[in-house]
Amino acid sequence: MKIAIIGLGLIGASIAKALRGQVEITGIDTDQATIDRALQDGVIKQGGPDMSLAEGSGMVVLAVPVGSIVQTAKRVIPHISKDTVITDTGSTKARIVREMDAAWPCFVGGHPIAGRENPGYEAGQATLFNNAITIITPTKTSLHHCIEKVTWLWESCGSHVTTMDPDKHDELMAIISHMPHLLSFVSMSIAGEIHIHKELLGAGFRDFTRIAASDPVMWKDIFMANKDHVLPLIDEYMEELGKIKGIISSENAGDLEEMLRTYATIRRDLYESTR
Amino acid sequence: MKIAIIGLGLIGASIAKALRGQVEITGIDTDQATIDRALQDGVIKQGGPDMSLAEGSGMVVLAVPVGSIVQTAKRVIPHISKDTVITDTGSTKARIVREMDAAWPCFVGGHPIAGRENPGYEAGQATLFNNAITIITPTKTSLHHCIEKVTWLWESCGSHVTTMDPDKHDELMAIISHMPHLLSFVSMSIAGEIHIHKELLGAGFRDFTRIAASDPVMWKDIFMANKDHVLPLIDEYMEELGKIKGIISSENAGDLEEMLRTYATIRRDLYESTR
Repeated sequence: MKIAIIGLGLIGASIAKALRGQVEITGIDTDQATIDRALQDGVIKQGGPDMSLAEGSGMVVLAVPVGSIVQTAKRVIPHISKDTVITDTGSTKARIVREMDAAWPCFVGGHPIAGRENPGYEAGQATLFNNAITIITPTKTSLHHCIEKVTWLWESCGSHVTTMDPDKHDELMAIISHMPHLLSFVSMSIAGEIHIHKELLGAGFRDFTRIAASDPVMWKDIFMANKDHVLPLIDEYMEELGKIKGIISSENAGDLEEMLRTYATIRRDLYESTR
Repeated sequence: MKIAIIGLGLIGASIAKALRGQVEITGIDTDQATIDRALQDGVIKQGGPDMSLAEGSGMVVLAVPVGSIVQTAKRVIPHISKDTVITDTGSTKARIVREMDAAWPCFVGGHPIAGRENPGYEAGQATLFNNAITIITPTKTSLHHCIEKVTWLWESCGSHVTTMDPDKHDELMAIISHMPHLLSFVSMSIAGEIHIHKELLGAGFRDFTRIAASDPVMWKDIFMANKDHVLPLIDEYMEELGKIKGIISSENAGDLEEMLRTYATIRRDLYESTR
């Protein structure tokens, strides 16, 4: 099978590197230096910026930012045959799947739960998905053989594949990933003045705020695409913050300790260790 | 000099282990097993639960939880002579220093910026304070020789000593330590149902929530003792959350990206690296 990967960033490059030798890969990316490097590495067989390069591919992988996935799909569709499988790697699924199901008969959404600090082709690794979980989000209208091909793609990259409803995926990711990122980003609003005391920053601050340095463009797309789940969680979080504020304010030691103990227990149970 | 350390938990035990051989140490702790172990290890020369054991000490180190420091000091004071230096290791300073300055002529507050996940005597390490910073918080009324002795204590433990106003210390720690802990604790309120999807938790979630497993008793004390700085920061944070909520809600991509970019830049500047 021939596969076209659109976007040779961290995720797209990792897929290409993982599949090298198994299939013939076409790389589509607007950055010519990236294409040259991937050709030179033997990671792709041909490549360039034009969507027409996808012609003849059995599968198209959209490894572009969440906010560009559907429009990129619409640009490549004129160049591929009706039986071509399209999949994506976006961190949100409901909106993308809804629009793609309407646009293409053989689309199955995907989201590999893997990442690295550094973006870009060079950061891509053949082993990125080894033992990682990839969630695929077929719907009632998804064709069996399309689901099978996308499952095959991720298993060939070394990933475990699990199936989830697109909306359920977004609900869960809002809690596991999107809210932690949002809360960490926002925590920087109160940290503007502490650069003069850098030497006092401990491990707690470092770890809590690490994801606040994430890519603003990527996360802007994610927060907007998943606003239906993120916004109610912000409300829920603010309500809980208001509650703890009241308890601290009244110095109600018993209630405060109980509240903190409940939180600590949830965290400890998730990891089955003291920390 | 003879030093009495009250509380042989992580911090008290680490001080005792660091000073072993340099001075004669008396350990005061209500847990007899801890005292036995410290005696057996040769870390303390004598020990037990009674405050009277502090008699004849040139310095008393209060290494007990923030909420118990002043009352513990008041229990040991009848047993020590007027020229004995008292210091503490609490994570908040203003309230403690105010009350201790009124209660004792030779008190200087301290806060070693060091810690480990695990509490207790066994977790204590002679090297815990090596190259760590300890903030001491003398006031206008602090006697010069008392400040010198507390400085000597921490330098003897391998620590760098820096001086700060007690209120400034609390203001800074509210941002660097107390708010990250509070926000991480509270994030668990929306994570109650995700235990069935443990396998999907990534590095972002793990690091962001690590400090939510911190000791509820210790943190209850800290949040209450520093409520003057923590409460306004909660308001500030909620206001910023409300702002980002409005921007996501209206899908104002430009403003959202700019806001996230500002946050990411603050975090990156603090660590002078991409993440």
